[in-house]
Amino acid sequence: MTKPSDLLLLRDKLRVFAEARDWDQFHSPKNLCMALMVEVAEIMEHFQWSTEEQSGNLATENKTAVAEELADVLLYLIRLSDKLDIDLLEAALLKLDKNAVKYPADIVRGSSKKYNEYCPD
Amino acid sequence: MTKPSDLLLLRDKLRVFAEARDWDQFHSPKNLCMALMVEVAEIMEHFQWSTEEQSGNLATENKTAVAEELADVLLYLIRLSDKLDIDLLEAALLKLDKNAVKYPADIVRGSSKKYNEYCPD
Amino acid sequence: MTKPSDLLLLRDKLRVFAEARDWDQFHSPKNLCMALMVEVAEIMEHFQWSTEEQSGNLATENKTAVAEELADVLLYLIRLSDKLDIDLLEAALLKLDKNAVKYPADIVRGSSKKYNEYCPD
Amino acid sequence: MTKPSDLLLLRDKLRVFAEARDWDQFHSPKNLCMALMVEVAEIMEHFQWSTEEQSGNLATENKTAVAEELADVLLYLIRLSDKLDIDLLEAALLKLDKNAVKYPADIVRGSSKKYNEYCPD
Repeated sequence: MTKPSDLLLLRDKLRVFAEARDWDQFHSPKNLCMALMVEVAEIMEHFQWSTEEQSGNLATENKTAVAEELADVLLYLIRLSDKLDIDLLEAALLKLDKNAVKYPADIVRGSSKKYNEYCPD
Repeated sequence: MTKPSDLLLLRDKLRVFAEARDWDQFHSPKNLCMALMVEVAEIMEHFQWSTEEQSGNLATENKTAVAEELADVLLYLIRLSDKLDIDLLEAALLKLDKNAVKYPADIVRGSSKKYNEYCPD
Repeated sequence: MTKPSDLLLLRDKLRVFAEARDWDQFHSPKNLCMALMVEVAEIMEHFQWSTEEQSGNLATENKTAVAEELADVLLYLIRLSDKLDIDLLEAALLKLDKNAVKYPADIVRGSSKKYNEYCPD
Repeated sequence: MTKPSDLLLLRDKLRVFAEARDWDQFHSPKNLCMALMVEVAEIMEHFQWSTEEQSGNLATENKTAVAEELADVLLYLIRLSDKLDIDLLEAALLKLDKNAVKYPADIVRGSSKKYNEYCPD
Protein backbone atom coordinates (compact mmCIF):
# COMPACT_ATOMS: atom_id res chain seq x y z
CA MET A 1 0.00 0.00 0.00
CA THR A 2 1.45 3.34 -0.99
CA LYS A 3 1.72 6.20 1.46
CA PRO A 4 -0.95 8.83 0.76
CA SER A 5 0.08 12.24 -0.52
CA ASP A 6 0.94 14.72 2.27
CA LEU A 7 -1.14 17.43 0.68
CA LEU A 8 -4.19 15.22 0.25
CA LEU A 9 -3.83 13.89 3.78
CA LEU A 10 -3.83 17.42 5.17
CA ARG A 11 -6.68 18.44 2.86
CA ASP A 12 -8.82 15.61 4.20
CA LYS A 13 -8.03 16.38 7.82
CA LEU A 14 -8.98 20.03 7.24
CA ARG A 15 -12.28 19.00 5.66
CA VAL A 16 -13.18 16.89 8.68
CA PHE A 17 -12.09 19.69 11.03
CA ALA A 18 -14.23 22.34 9.35
CA GLU A 19 -17.24 20.08 9.00
CA ALA A 20 -17.20 19.08 12.68
CA ARG A 21 -17.31 22.77 13.61
CA ASP A 22 -19.70 23.91 10.89
CA TRP A 23 -17.04 26.39 9.77
CA ASP A 24 -17.45 25.71 6.08
CA GLN A 25 -19.84 28.68 5.92
CA PHE A 26 -16.96 31.09 6.71
CA HIS A 27 -14.53 29.51 4.26
CA SER A 28 -15.20 31.46 1.09
CA PRO A 29 -12.05 31.81 -1.03
CA LYS A 30 -12.16 35.56 -0.36
CA ASN A 31 -12.06 35.02 3.41
CA LEU A 32 -9.49 32.22 3.25
CA CYS A 33 -7.22 34.40 1.15
CA MET A 34 -7.36 37.10 3.83
CA ALA A 35 -6.61 34.54 6.55
CA LEU A 36 -3.67 33.26 4.50
CA MET A 37 -2.30 36.79 4.23
CA VAL A 38 -2.65 37.42 7.95
CA GLU A 39 -0.67 34.25 8.68
CA VAL A 40 2.13 35.25 6.31
CA ALA A 41 2.31 38.57 8.14
CA GLU A 42 2.81 36.66 11.38
CA ILE A 43 5.90 35.07 9.85
CA MET A 44 7.01 38.48 8.62
CA GLU A 45 6.83 39.95 12.11
CA HIS A 46 9.73 37.67 13.05
CA PHE A 47 11.93 39.03 10.26
CA GLN A 48 11.00 42.69 9.84
CA TRP A 49 13.81 44.15 11.93
CA SER A 50 16.38 41.39 11.35
CA THR A 51 19.26 41.53 8.98
CA GLU A 52 19.19 38.88 6.27
CA GLU A 53 21.87 37.00 8.13
CA GLN A 54 19.98 37.08 11.43
CA SER A 55 16.87 35.82 9.65
CA GLY A 56 18.73 32.57 8.92
CA ASN A 57 19.81 32.07 12.54
CA LEU A 58 16.67 31.97 14.62
CA ALA A 59 16.88 31.21 18.32
CA THR A 60 15.17 27.91 19.24
CA GLU A 61 12.20 29.65 20.79
CA ASN A 62 11.63 31.79 17.72
CA LYS A 63 12.09 28.79 15.45
CA THR A 64 9.28 26.95 17.21
CA ALA A 65 7.01 29.97 16.83
CA VAL A 66 7.89 30.41 13.15
CA ALA A 67 7.27 26.70 12.49
CA GLU A 68 3.76 27.17 13.79
CA GLU A 69 3.16 30.16 11.52
CA LEU A 70 4.51 28.25 8.52
CA ALA A 71 2.08 25.46 9.38
CA ASP A 72 -0.81 27.94 9.48
CA VAL A 73 0.12 29.23 6.05
CA LEU A 74 0.25 25.70 4.63
CA LEU A 75 -3.09 24.77 6.20
CA TYR A 76 -4.91 27.84 4.86
CA LEU A 77 -3.27 27.40 1.47
CA ILE A 78 -4.46 23.80 1.24
CA ARG A 79 -7.94 24.78 2.41
CA LEU A 80 -8.13 27.61 -0.13
CA SER A 81 -7.02 25.30 -2.94
CA ASP A 82 -9.61 22.75 -1.88
CA LYS A 83 -12.45 25.29 -1.93
CA LEU A 84 -11.33 26.38 -5.41
CA ASP A 85 -11.07 22.75 -6.52
CA ILE A 86 -7.43 23.21 -7.51
CA ASP A 87 -4.89 20.37 -7.25
CA LEU A 88 -1.99 22.04 -5.48
CA LEU A 89 0.67 19.41 -6.22
CA GLU A 90 -0.19 19.37 -9.91
CA ALA A 91 -0.14 23.18 -10.02
CA ALA A 92 3.27 23.26 -8.30
CA LEU A 93 4.81 20.71 -10.65
CA LEU A 94 3.47 22.61 -13.67
CA LYS A 95 4.87 25.88 -12.30
CA LEU A 96 8.30 24.32 -11.73
CA ASP A 97 8.38 23.21 -15.36
CA LYS A 98 7.32 26.66 -16.49
CA ASN A 99 10.00 28.31 -14.36
CA ALA A 100 12.67 26.00 -15.78
CA VAL A 101 11.81 27.24 -19.27
CA LYS A 102 11.48 30.88 -18.21
CA TYR A 103 14.78 31.05 -16.34
CA PRO A 104 17.32 28.95 -18.25
CA ALA A 105 20.11 28.15 -15.82
CA ASP A 106 22.91 29.10 -18.22
CA ILE A 107 21.44 32.56 -18.89
CA VAL A 108 20.25 33.72 -15.47
CA ARG A 109 23.01 32.08 -13.46
CA GLY A 110 24.62 34.24 -10.84
CA SER A 111 24.22 37.96 -10.86
CA SER A 112 21.60 39.68 -8.76
CA LYS A 113 20.84 42.00 -11.63
CA LYS A 114 19.80 39.06 -13.75
CA TYR A 115 17.91 37.62 -10.82
CA ASN A 116 15.93 40.81 -10.45
CA GLU A 117 15.14 41.06 -14.10
CA TYR A 118 14.12 37.45 -14.41
CA CYS A 119 12.77 36.81 -10.95
CA PRO A 120 9.74 34.50 -10.74
CA ASP A 121 6.37 36.24 -10.61
CA MET B 1 8.59 1.14 -2.93
CA THR B 2 6.62 3.89 -1.24
CA LYS B 3 5.79 7.09 -3.01
CA PRO B 4 7.95 9.95 -1.69
CA SER B 5 6.33 12.76 0.25
CA ASP B 6 4.96 15.56 -1.97
CA LEU B 7 6.51 18.23 0.17
CA LEU B 8 9.94 16.60 0.21
CA LEU B 9 9.76 15.99 -3.54
CA LEU B 10 9.08 19.68 -4.16
CA ARG B 11 11.71 20.73 -1.63
CA ASP B 12 14.32 18.70 -3.48
CA LYS B 13 13.33 20.04 -6.86
CA LEU B 14 13.57 23.60 -5.53
CA ARG B 15 17.03 22.91 -4.13
CA VAL B 16 18.25 21.69 -7.51
CA PHE B 17 16.60 24.64 -9.25
CA ALA B 18 18.23 27.26 -7.00
CA GLU B 19 21.61 25.58 -7.08
CA ALA B 20 21.69 25.39 -10.88
CA ARG B 21 21.07 29.15 -11.02
CA ASP B 22 23.26 30.13 -8.07
CA TRP B 23 20.19 31.77 -6.52
CA ASP B 24 20.81 30.43 -3.05
CA GLN B 25 22.59 33.69 -2.22
CA PHE B 26 19.30 35.62 -2.56
CA HIS B 27 17.26 33.14 -0.54
CA SER B 28 17.63 34.47 2.98
CA PRO B 29 14.50 33.76 5.08
CA LYS B 30 13.88 37.51 5.19
CA ASN B 31 13.80 37.76 1.40
CA LEU B 32 11.82 34.55 0.92
CA CYS B 33 9.22 35.78 3.37
CA MET B 34 8.79 38.95 1.31
CA ALA B 35 8.49 36.92 -1.89
CA LEU B 36 5.89 34.70 -0.21
CA MET B 37 3.88 37.77 0.76
CA VAL B 38 4.02 39.21 -2.75
CA GLU B 39 2.67 35.95 -4.16
CA VAL B 40 -0.22 35.86 -1.68
CA ALA B 41 -1.08 39.40 -2.79
CA GLU B 42 -1.26 38.14 -6.36
CA ILE B 43 -3.96 35.71 -5.25
CA MET B 44 -5.68 38.51 -3.37
CA GLU B 45 -5.85 40.68 -6.47
CA HIS B 46 -8.27 38.15 -7.92
CA PHE B 47 -10.65 38.45 -4.96
CA GLN B 48 -10.44 42.04 -3.78
CA TRP B 49 -13.52 43.33 -5.57
CA SER B 50 -15.49 40.08 -5.64
CA THR B 51 -18.29 39.17 -3.33
CA GLU B 52 -17.65 36.07 -1.23
CA GLU B 53 -19.98 34.14 -3.50
CA GLN B 54 -18.20 35.27 -6.67
CA SER B 55 -14.88 34.27 -5.13
CA GLY B 56 -16.06 30.64 -5.13
CA ASN B 57 -17.10 30.72 -8.80
CA LEU B 58 -14.05 31.66 -10.79
CA ALA B 59 -14.18 31.66 -14.57
CA THR B 60 -11.89 29.01 -16.10
CA GLU B 61 -9.35 31.58 -17.22
CA ASN B 62 -9.11 33.10 -13.75
CA LYS B 63 -8.95 29.66 -12.16
CA THR B 64 -5.87 28.80 -14.21
CA ALA B 65 -4.22 32.05 -13.18
CA VAL B 66 -5.10 31.55 -9.51
CA ALA B 67 -3.76 27.96 -9.62
CA GLU B 68 -0.43 29.37 -10.71
CA GLU B 69 -0.37 31.88 -7.86
CA LEU B 70 -1.26 29.16 -5.35
CA ALA B 71 1.64 27.13 -6.73
CA ASP B 72 4.01 30.08 -6.25
CA VAL B 73 2.90 30.42 -2.64
CA LEU B 74 3.48 26.72 -1.99
CA LEU B 75 6.90 26.79 -3.64
CA TYR B 76 8.13 29.80 -1.67
CA LEU B 77 6.67 28.36 1.53
CA ILE B 78 8.55 25.10 1.03
CA ARG B 79 11.74 26.94 0.16
CA LEU B 80 11.44 29.18 3.24
CA SER B 81 10.85 26.15 5.48
CA ASP B 82 13.85 24.43 3.96
CA LYS B 83 16.16 27.40 4.59
CA LEU B 84 14.92 27.50 8.19
CA ASP B 85 15.38 23.74 8.52
CA ILE B 86 11.74 23.27 9.52
CA ASP B 87 9.79 20.12 8.61
CA LEU B 88 6.59 21.53 7.17
CA LEU B 89 4.50 18.35 7.30
CA GLU B 90 5.42 17.70 10.91
CA ALA B 91 4.65 21.33 11.81
CA ALA B 92 1.26 21.13 10.07
CA LEU B 93 0.28 17.88 11.82
CA LEU B 94 1.27 19.34 15.19
CA LYS B 95 -0.75 22.48 14.51
CA LEU B 96 -3.81 20.46 13.56
CA ASP B 97 -3.62 18.61 16.87
CA LYS B 98 -3.21 21.89 18.73
CA ASN B 99 -6.19 23.42 16.92
CA ALA B 100 -8.35 20.39 17.79
CA VAL B 101 -7.67 20.99 21.47
CA LYS B 102 -8.07 24.77 21.21
CA TYR B 103 -11.39 24.70 19.34
CA PRO B 104 -13.44 21.80 20.72
CA ALA B 105 -16.09 21.01 18.12
CA ASP B 106 -18.96 20.89 20.61
CA ILE B 107 -18.17 24.34 22.00
CA VAL B 108 -17.29 26.40 18.93
CA ARG B 109 -19.73 24.73 16.55
CA GLY B 110 -21.79 27.03 14.42
CA SER B 111 -22.07 30.70 15.20
CA SER B 112 -19.84 33.25 13.55
CA LYS B 113 -19.50 35.05 16.86
CA LYS B 114 -17.90 31.98 18.35
CA TYR B 115 -15.80 31.57 15.23
CA ASN B 116 -14.48 35.08 15.54
CA GLU B 117 -13.68 34.73 19.19
CA TYR B 118 -12.01 31.41 18.77
CA CYS B 119 -10.59 31.77 15.29
CA PRO B 120 -7.18 30.15 14.68
CA ASP B 121 -4.22 32.45 14.91
CA MET C 1 0.53 82.04 9.40
CA THR C 2 -0.69 79.03 7.47
CA LYS C 3 -1.28 75.72 9.16
CA PRO C 4 1.50 73.27 8.29
CA SER C 5 0.73 70.24 6.15
CA ASP C 6 -0.52 67.22 8.14
CA LEU C 7 1.84 64.90 6.35
CA LEU C 8 4.89 67.10 6.90
CA LEU C 9 3.93 67.61 10.53
CA LEU C 10 3.80 63.86 11.08
CA ARG C 11 6.99 63.32 9.09
CA ASP C 12 8.84 65.74 11.33
CA LYS C 13 7.49 64.20 14.52
CA LEU C 14 8.59 60.75 13.30
CA ARG C 15 12.08 62.06 12.53
CA VAL C 16 12.44 63.42 16.05
CA PHE C 17 11.04 60.19 17.52
CA ALA C 18 13.47 57.93 15.64
CA GLU C 19 16.44 60.17 16.29
CA ALA C 20 15.81 60.32 20.03
CA ARG C 21 15.82 56.51 20.12
CA ASP C 22 18.64 55.97 17.62
CA TRP C 23 16.24 53.84 15.58
CA ASP C 24 17.23 55.31 12.27
CA GLN C 25 19.66 52.42 11.82
CA PHE C 26 16.74 49.95 11.59
CA HIS C 27 14.71 52.08 9.19
CA SER C 28 15.91 50.89 5.82
CA PRO C 29 13.14 51.08 3.19
CA LYS C 30 13.21 47.27 3.02
CA ASN C 31 12.50 46.95 6.75
CA LEU C 32 9.94 49.76 6.82
CA CYS C 33 8.07 48.15 3.94
CA MET C 34 7.84 44.92 5.94
CA ALA C 35 6.63 46.81 9.01
CA LEU C 36 4.02 48.59 6.87
CA MET C 37 2.77 45.22 5.60
CA VAL C 38 2.56 43.77 9.10
CA GLU C 39 0.42 46.73 10.20
CA VAL C 40 -1.96 46.35 7.25
CA ALA C 41 -2.37 42.69 8.24
CA GLU C 42 -3.39 43.84 11.70
CA ILE C 43 -6.23 45.78 10.09
CA MET C 44 -7.08 42.75 7.97
CA GLU C 45 -7.42 40.55 11.02
CA HIS C 46 -10.47 42.60 11.98
CA PHE C 47 -12.17 41.94 8.65
CA GLN C 48 -11.14 38.46 7.57
CA TRP C 49 -14.23 36.61 8.81
CA SER C 50 -16.71 39.49 8.48
CA THR C 51 -19.18 39.94 5.70
CA GLU C 52 -18.72 43.13 3.69
CA GLU C 53 -21.71 44.59 5.50
CA GLN C 54 -20.37 43.73 8.94
CA SER C 55 -17.04 45.31 7.99
CA GLY C 56 -18.81 48.67 7.73
CA ASN C 57 -20.45 48.37 11.15
CA LEU C 58 -17.68 47.94 13.68
CA ALA C 59 -18.50 47.85 17.37
CA THR C 60 -17.01 50.84 19.24
CA GLU C 61 -14.30 48.74 20.84
CA ASN C 62 -13.20 47.34 17.49
CA LYS C 63 -13.35 50.77 15.90
CA THR C 64 -10.88 52.12 18.45
CA ALA C 65 -8.54 49.22 17.78
CA VAL C 66 -8.82 49.63 14.00
CA ALA C 67 -8.16 53.38 14.29
CA GLU C 68 -4.89 52.58 16.00
CA GLU C 69 -3.89 50.14 13.24
CA LEU C 70 -4.77 52.71 10.56
CA ALA C 71 -2.56 55.18 12.40
CA ASP C 72 0.32 52.70 12.40
CA VAL C 73 -0.04 52.22 8.66
CA LEU C 74 0.00 55.98 8.06
CA LEU C 75 3.02 56.49 10.30
CA TYR C 76 5.09 53.76 8.62
CA LEU C 77 4.00 54.97 5.19
CA ILE C 78 5.15 58.50 5.97
CA ARG C 79 8.42 57.22 7.41
CA LEU C 80 9.06 55.03 4.37
CA SER C 81 8.37 57.93 2.02
CA ASP C 82 10.71 60.13 4.02
CA LYS C 83 13.56 57.61 3.85
CA LEU C 84 13.03 57.35 0.09
CA ASP C 85 12.87 61.14 -0.21
CA ILE C 86 9.45 60.99 -1.85
CA ASP C 87 6.85 63.74 -1.35
CA LEU C 88 3.74 61.77 -0.48
CA LEU C 89 1.19 64.55 -1.03
CA GLU C 90 2.61 65.40 -4.42
CA ALA C 91 2.64 61.71 -5.40
CA ALA C 92 -0.98 61.30 -4.29
CA LEU C 93 -2.18 64.34 -6.23
CA LEU C 94 -0.36 63.15 -9.35
CA LYS C 95 -1.90 59.69 -8.99
CA LEU C 96 -5.39 61.13 -8.63
CA ASP C 97 -4.93 63.04 -11.88
CA LYS C 98 -3.65 59.91 -13.59
CA ASN C 99 -6.60 57.86 -12.33
CA ALA C 100 -9.04 60.47 -13.60
CA VAL C 101 -7.63 60.04 -17.11
CA LYS C 102 -7.41 56.25 -16.85
CA TYR C 103 -10.96 55.73 -15.61
CA PRO C 104 -13.19 58.26 -17.38
CA ALA C 105 -16.37 58.56 -15.31
CA ASP C 106 -18.73 58.20 -18.25
CA ILE C 107 -17.12 54.96 -19.42
CA VAL C 108 -16.45 53.04 -16.22
CA ARG C 109 -19.53 54.23 -14.35
CA GLY C 110 -21.49 51.55 -12.56
CA SER C 111 -20.99 47.92 -13.35
CA SER C 112 -18.69 45.77 -11.30
CA LYS C 113 -17.45 44.14 -14.48
CA LYS C 114 -16.17 47.46 -15.71
CA TYR C 115 -14.77 48.17 -12.27
CA ASN C 116 -12.83 44.94 -12.32
CA GLU C 117 -11.46 45.51 -15.76
CA TYR C 118 -10.49 49.07 -15.07
CA CYS C 119 -9.69 48.88 -11.38
CA PRO C 120 -6.77 51.01 -10.19
CA ASP C 121 -3.46 49.22 -9.93
CA MET D 1 -7.48 81.79 5.02
CA THR D 2 -5.75 78.69 6.33
CA LYS D 3 -4.61 75.94 4.02
CA PRO D 4 -6.88 72.91 4.28
CA SER D 5 -5.56 69.70 5.78
CA ASP D 6 -3.79 67.42 3.22
CA LEU D 7 -5.62 64.37 4.46
CA LEU D 8 -9.04 66.02 4.31
CA LEU D 9 -8.29 67.44 0.89
CA LEU D 10 -7.44 63.98 -0.43
CA ARG D 11 -10.43 62.43 1.36
CA ASP D 12 -12.75 64.88 -0.38
CA LYS D 13 -11.20 64.31 -3.79
CA LEU D 14 -11.60 60.55 -3.34
CA ARG D 15 -15.25 60.97 -2.39
CA VAL D 16 -15.94 62.94 -5.55
CA PHE D 17 -13.99 60.42 -7.63
CA ALA D 18 -15.90 57.40 -6.30
CA GLU D 19 -19.26 59.11 -6.54
CA ALA D 20 -18.75 60.15 -10.16
CA ARG D 21 -18.05 56.51 -11.04
CA ASP D 22 -20.65 54.94 -8.77
CA TRP D 23 -17.85 52.92 -7.16
CA ASP D 24 -19.02 53.46 -3.63
CA GLN D 25 -20.84 50.12 -3.84
CA PHE D 26 -17.49 48.28 -4.09
CA HIS D 27 -15.85 50.21 -1.26
CA SER D 28 -16.73 48.12 1.78
CA PRO D 29 -14.01 48.28 4.43
CA LYS D 30 -13.34 44.59 3.81
CA ASN D 31 -12.66 45.20 0.11
CA LEU D 32 -10.67 48.40 0.67
CA CYS D 33 -8.48 46.61 3.19
CA MET D 34 -7.68 43.96 0.57
CA ALA D 35 -6.91 46.66 -2.02
CA LEU D 36 -4.65 48.41 0.50
CA MET D 37 -2.76 45.16 1.07
CA VAL D 38 -2.32 44.54 -2.65
CA GLU D 39 -0.82 48.02 -3.07
CA VAL D 40 1.64 47.49 -0.21
CA ALA D 41 2.72 44.27 -1.93
CA GLU D 42 3.44 46.29 -5.05
CA ILE D 43 5.89 48.37 -3.02
CA MET D 44 7.34 45.18 -1.56
CA GLU D 45 8.04 43.76 -5.00
CA HIS D 46 10.62 46.50 -5.45
CA PHE D 47 12.49 45.52 -2.29
CA GLN D 48 12.16 41.75 -1.99
CA TRP D 49 15.52 40.83 -3.52
CA SER D 50 17.41 43.99 -2.54
CA THR D 51 19.79 44.31 0.33
CA GLU D 52 18.78 46.87 2.94
CA GLU D 53 21.39 49.21 1.55
CA GLN D 54 20.16 48.85 -2.03
CA SER D 55 16.62 49.54 -0.86
CA GLY D 56 17.71 53.04 0.13
CA ASN D 57 19.33 53.77 -3.24
CA LEU D 58 16.63 53.37 -5.85
CA ALA D 59 17.38 54.20 -9.47
CA THR D 60 15.31 57.17 -10.71
CA GLU D 61 13.02 54.97 -12.76
CA ASN D 62 12.28 52.72 -9.79
CA LYS D 63 11.80 55.71 -7.54
CA THR D 64 9.07 57.07 -9.79
CA ALA D 65 7.33 53.69 -9.77
CA VAL D 66 7.61 53.35 -6.00
CA ALA D 67 6.24 56.89 -5.52
CA GLU D 68 3.15 55.84 -7.41
CA GLU D 69 2.68 52.75 -5.24
CA LEU D 70 3.13 54.82 -2.08
CA ALA D 71 0.44 57.16 -3.40
CA ASP D 72 -1.91 54.23 -3.98
CA VAL D 73 -1.39 53.06 -0.41
CA LEU D 74 -2.14 56.53 0.95
CA LEU D 75 -5.25 56.89 -1.19
CA TYR D 76 -6.72 53.53 -0.16
CA LEU D 77 -5.81 54.19 3.46
CA ILE D 78 -7.64 57.53 3.42
CA ARG D 79 -10.64 55.97 1.67
CA LEU D 80 -10.77 53.11 4.18
CA SER D 81 -10.60 55.54 7.10
CA ASP D 82 -13.35 57.62 5.56
CA LYS D 83 -15.68 54.63 5.14
CA LEU D 84 -15.03 53.70 8.78
CA ASP D 85 -15.60 57.29 9.86
CA ILE D 86 -12.17 57.46 11.50
CA ASP D 87 -10.15 60.70 11.64
CA LEU D 88 -6.75 59.58 10.43
CA LEU D 89 -4.76 62.61 11.61
CA GLU D 90 -6.25 62.46 15.08
CA ALA D 91 -5.56 58.72 15.26
CA ALA D 92 -1.95 59.25 14.16
CA LEU D 93 -1.31 61.99 16.72
CA LEU D 94 -2.81 59.84 19.49
CA LYS D 95 -0.65 56.91 18.46
CA LEU D 96 2.51 59.03 18.47
CA ASP D 97 1.75 60.09 22.03
CA LYS D 98 1.11 56.49 23.02
CA ASN D 99 4.37 55.36 21.42
CA ALA D 100 6.30 58.07 23.27
CA VAL D 101 5.06 56.64 26.57
CA LYS D 102 5.55 53.02 25.53
CA TYR D 103 9.12 53.45 24.26
CA PRO D 104 10.87 55.94 26.56
CA ALA D 105 13.88 57.26 24.67
CA ASP D 106 16.31 56.76 27.53
CA ILE D 107 15.38 53.09 27.98
CA VAL D 108 15.01 51.79 24.42
CA ARG D 109 17.78 53.90 22.92
CA GLY D 110 20.17 52.10 20.67
CA SER D 111 20.45 48.35 20.65
CA SER D 112 18.57 46.26 18.14
CA LYS D 113 17.71 43.77 20.85
CA LYS D 114 15.83 46.46 22.73
CA TYR D 115 14.25 47.62 19.51
CA ASN D 116 12.95 44.17 18.80
CA GLU D 117 11.55 43.69 22.26
CA TYR D 118 9.91 47.08 22.34
CA CYS D 119 9.08 47.52 18.69
CA PRO D 120 5.78 49.28 17.92
CA ASP D 121 2.84 47.00 17.21
